[in-house]
Amino acid sequence: MEIIVPNVTPFTKDNRIDKDRLKEHLENLIEKGIDIIFINGTTGMGPSLSAEEKKEILNISYDVTGKIIFQLGGLNLDDTLNLLQYSRDFDIIGVASYSPYYYPQLPSKWVIRYFKTLVEKSPHPVYVYNFPAATGFDMNYELMKQIDGLAGLKDTNDNFVHSLQYKRFLNIKVYNGSDYLTVQSLTYLDGTVTAGGNYMPELLSLQKKLVSEGKINDAFEVQKTYYKFLDIARKYGQMSAHYILVKELQGYDVGYPREPLYPLTEDEIKQLEADVKEIKNEYTFILDKYGITS
Amino acid sequence: MEIIVPNVTPFTKDNRIDKDRLKEHLENLIEKGIDIIFINGTTGMGPSLSAEEKKEILNISYDVTGKIIFQLGGLNLDDTLNLLQYSRDFDIIGVASYSPYYYPQLPSKWVIRYFKTLVEKSPHPVYVYNFPAATGFDMNYELMKQIDGLAGLKDTNDNFVHSLQYKRFLNIKVYNGSDYLTVQSLTYLDGTVTAGGNYMPELLSLQKKLVSEGKINDAFEVQKTYYKFLDIARKYGQMSAHYILVKELQGYDVGYPREPLYPLTEDEIKQLEADVKEIKNEYTFILDKYGITS
Amino acid sequence: MEIIVPNVTPFTKDNRIDKDRLKEHLENLIEKGIDIIFINGTTGMGPSLSAEEKKEILNISYDVTGKIIFQLGGLNLDDTLNLLQYSRDFDIIGVASYSPYYYPQLPSKWVIRYFKTLVEKSPHPVYVYNFPAATGFDMNYELMKQIDGLAGLKDTNDNFVHSLQYKRFLNIKVYNGSDYLTVQSLTYLDGTVTAGGNYMPELLSLQKKLVSEGKINDAFEVQKTYYKFLDIARKYGQMSAHYILVKELQGYDVGYPREPLYPLTEDEIKQLEADVKEIKNEYTFILDKYGITS
Amino acid sequence: MEIIVPNVTPFTKDNRIDKDRLKEHLENLIEKGIDIIFINGTTGMGPSLSAEEKKEILNISYDVTGKIIFQLGGLNLDDTLNLLQYSRDFDIIGVASYSPYYYPQLPSKWVIRYFKTLVEKSPHPVYVYNFPAATGFDMNYELMKQIDGLAGLKDTNDNFVHSLQYKRFLNIKVYNGSDYLTVQSLTYLDGTVTAGGNYMPELLSLQKKLVSEGKINDAFEVQKTYYKFLDIARKYGQMSAHYILVKELQGYDVGYPREPLYPLTEDEIKQLEADVKEIKNEYTFILDKYGITS
Repeated sequence: MEIIVPNVTPFTKDNRIDKDRLKEHLENLIEKGIDIIFINGTTGMGPSLSAEEKKEILNISYDVTGKIIFQLGGLNLDDTLNLLQYSRDFDIIGVASYSPYYYPQLPSKWVIRYFKTLVEKSPHPVYVYNFPAATGFDMNYELMKQIDGLAGLKDTNDNFVHSLQYKRFLNIKVYNGSDYLTVQSLTYLDGTVTAGGNYMPELLSLQKKLVSEGKINDAFEVQKTYYKFLDIARKYGQMSAHYILVKELQGYDVGYPREPLYPLTEDEIKQLEADVKEIKNEYTFILDKYGITS
Repeated sequence: MEIIVPNVTPFTKDNRIDKDRLKEHLENLIEKGIDIIFINGTTGMGPSLSAEEKKEILNISYDVTGKIIFQLGGLNLDDTLNLLQYSRDFDIIGVASYSPYYYPQLPSKWVIRYFKTLVEKSPHPVYVYNFPAATGFDMNYELMKQIDGLAGLKDTNDNFVHSLQYKRFLNIKVYNGSDYLTVQSLTYLDGTVTAGGNYMPELLSLQKKLVSEGKINDAFEVQKTYYKFLDIARKYGQMSAHYILVKELQGYDVGYPREPLYPLTEDEIKQLEADVKEIKNEYTFILDKYGITS
Repeated sequence: MEIIVPNVTPFTKDNRIDKDRLKEHLENLIEKGIDIIFINGTTGMGPSLSAEEKKEILNISYDVTGKIIFQLGGLNLDDTLNLLQYSRDFDIIGVASYSPYYYPQLPSKWVIRYFKTLVEKSPHPVYVYNFPAATGFDMNYELMKQIDGLAGLKDTNDNFVHSLQYKRFLNIKVYNGSDYLTVQSLTYLDGTVTAGGNYMPELLSLQKKLVSEGKINDAFEVQKTYYKFLDIARKYGQMSAHYILVKELQGYDVGYPREPLYPLTEDEIKQLEADVKEIKNEYTFILDKYGITS
Repeated sequence: MEIIVPNVTPFTKDNRIDKDRLKEHLENLIEKGIDIIFINGTTGMGPSLSAEEKKEILNISYDVTGKIIFQLGGLNLDDTLNLLQYSRDFDIIGVASYSPYYYPQLPSKWVIRYFKTLVEKSPHPVYVYNFPAATGFDMNYELMKQIDGLAGLKDTNDNFVHSLQYKRFLNIKVYNGSDYLTVQSLTYLDGTVTAGGNYMPELLSLQKKLVSEGKINDAFEVQKTYYKFLDIARKYGQMSAHYILVKELQGYDVGYPREPLYPLTEDEIKQLEADVKEIKNEYTFILDKYGITS
């Protein structure tokens, strides 16, 4: 079972990738026991990155670890194929792509063809990234069955029946991507992809440890604290809140998001910090209880 | 009242913009009475175009006409602002942008801020392109009211109440973008934006003429023929079918779509052609009846 | 073209049908030019009425007029068939039924079978009442085509393309049931079913008159005032607001709604009255302008 | 932790409740270890039952067991209150109601008021039955928090995050009602309400036993067989398929469904039987493996 974090991408004030901060962040995640980093995901603002920037992020990340799934999807297939080609020299876990987004009512046969092309051309195992709420397209298990050679799937979905179906009907790795289903996904699927791991890697590792020891109830208790910080992220505009929460809980700076996301305002940051302060002792209490150093 | 066509973008077999075919196509549309060309729209595969390609299309189109709304939105605001800056030297009708797509649950205040930035920086009138089925975000009239200085809106929506609301509460141009509501939009709004105009510009112009003369029933009769060809487009994967339908009804080649869209197969093209053949006499009959040369 | 009103059902304080008030209300509607009364509709709380009450309402209404469509659907087919049988002695325009509601994912063949049974057993023309937002089932034109012998359809739907499709593909009466599409439905369909007619019958009749004279723009102007009162209904919990708005605009009492609807509170009524007061002169101004006595 | 079955209601060919078959069915369910029978639920065609029939079913069921939750909701509050009053003499576990269905956009304050009335008048603990796909209304945890004195909730929802939220924020019993989430609900909530228990009570009891012993993986294995028969139910029009599946797997007759549901056709029954035959040995294999007599 794996815990996977779709990392936040640190930007500078003038909208460029902040290399040093990205490195520091990934080093911390790996050190805290995260199994795989999912780069250029939604949390990392993948759809807003140019092909060049996706390469740059792969390079920076690879300096830290090879435990990488390289998300390289987009709406220009030439770009995607170039990125596949580019990834050839990197010894990584796999590549991933969301299905083509934006275009409504894409015939499913085209989406299948898209992923078949990826499998055919890829030097690495291919993971499908299913996120219907973002792409408007549901890459369900019946469509997945039509593509041979896939390695796995990230299903970002609160509908847990939906994720369980892939596990029933396909012989691939299945990860659920809802922040709120970490323990459940570790128990019934192959693991979880959770943005909350950016700022709570210790709690995420602990959930994995407890589930792997069969201590489901303890894991569920830990998850309840995990939930409380996720709630704070949602309260303040989730994706931008990540940038502040890493600082609050991990102690270092991951820079800024980039438009069309906007950084939280001064006021929002103050309120968020007050919210964190109120429950932070729960976080440290759990770490102490289980003898974890943060 | 205006009839606006979001033009098909002709690509070459190796995925580049086909300059000559684009020019020929736009010349025909203008000649047939289309009021405004909406470039880089969904039909034109706008979200798959790089910033450079969007500029190229503006250049080519401007050689033909200044009756252009230049769609320049995307997920990288720097790119969008550069395109705004670039448009400065072109004497066009306006610029447009969809709201940032893909990212689910974007706070509406960020989307408003996005459009306010555009209005502030734009050398041309700004049109909002609302297409909730594609972007996952509904830029409804209540949000629109919070942005001063907008020139208009394209609402791609079968919900006609939704489009009428903008007209009630805002003093801007309101165009509906559903292919199936051309006459209704010409009657109750400021006009229509319809991809069907790519291959039926004569019928579209005729609908406008009849509505402007108060001949609603005649316009509605013409619309029923318009519907029949729209149905064929939908039957074969709408966006790719456009490329064949232009050839069938206008007699020239507009090249190919580009991945993640795929051209129709040989078989699909044959079937489509047979479907067109069966009803094409309706098209010519109407043109004859109203004394129009195609 | 017809204007149809789904009438409010007046209840007494102890939850019984208020016979006298119902009669007075229907007399007024007929006098003001409403073509057909749609009894036991959603506005009339049809799904909350027992079979006995539905009969009672038919009896009371028939004392006033035979211009009735008798809605008799429900979740117990025996009841519905008894009501059909009961209607035999009444010389009315037709009967109607929504599709079976509540049960999710009813196979469409069962719904078709339901309506076929109605057509077979009915002594009167049968109208389908399609209201997907209430029933969870869309009785679209493709399903409708599978049922022979239907007289018409009420499509309660802001999606106007959806309503237009029935008109294209079926040779039956098609009425749209969105309050906000009265003029559009009178222009492009066979008419409108609108709850707003309960309190604005004069304006509704006027819209019909103007459309039938080809004065679409004038009709649209009248519709804009119609909209303003519809907005007030929506602001205060639409179905209960109808009871107050009849009093405000037509001057008589139609009693109370019944649980699970609740009457507006004193405060809500006061606010609603203030809102009406602010724009009531628009109402009378239009009546004066067109020489109508209310 | 509880396993709850919303029982099938056996009807005779002439649409009346089949008393003997209902009794036999409930006796079997109790004998096989089902903790609570949820009568007049969706599976039991609750919304199609008259108030008299709901009483009749309570009487028949109570002859078998007091382990009953009595669903008594509907669209006529007088009926519901009479049923509450009627239940006074029965020593049962509780009463339940779905939220008022059909009426779109009911103000949530009215729904809250509805449930408050139930709590106030009920002689028994009150359970909310949340089934948004059927009622069109989501009785989420934020609304639930506004009602004091509730005993529990059945959330029929594939969205497991949604169910977990009640558990986080309310101190009541929380049951999920998705057939496909039995083990998950037994692990993380207070239990499961599953129609599959009508025909697979042994497998359901076994899932509970294994979860309570901490054998999550074994429970999940059993669940995979449970899934296979659920799939068959869905394949043939779920609610009517239940009537055949009870016969196939439990060996006795539970009569017929009633319109607007229709019994499966002869052909469908034959195919269903063939499907069951193919995997029935899995069922008996598991019972044997765990030493259970069916």
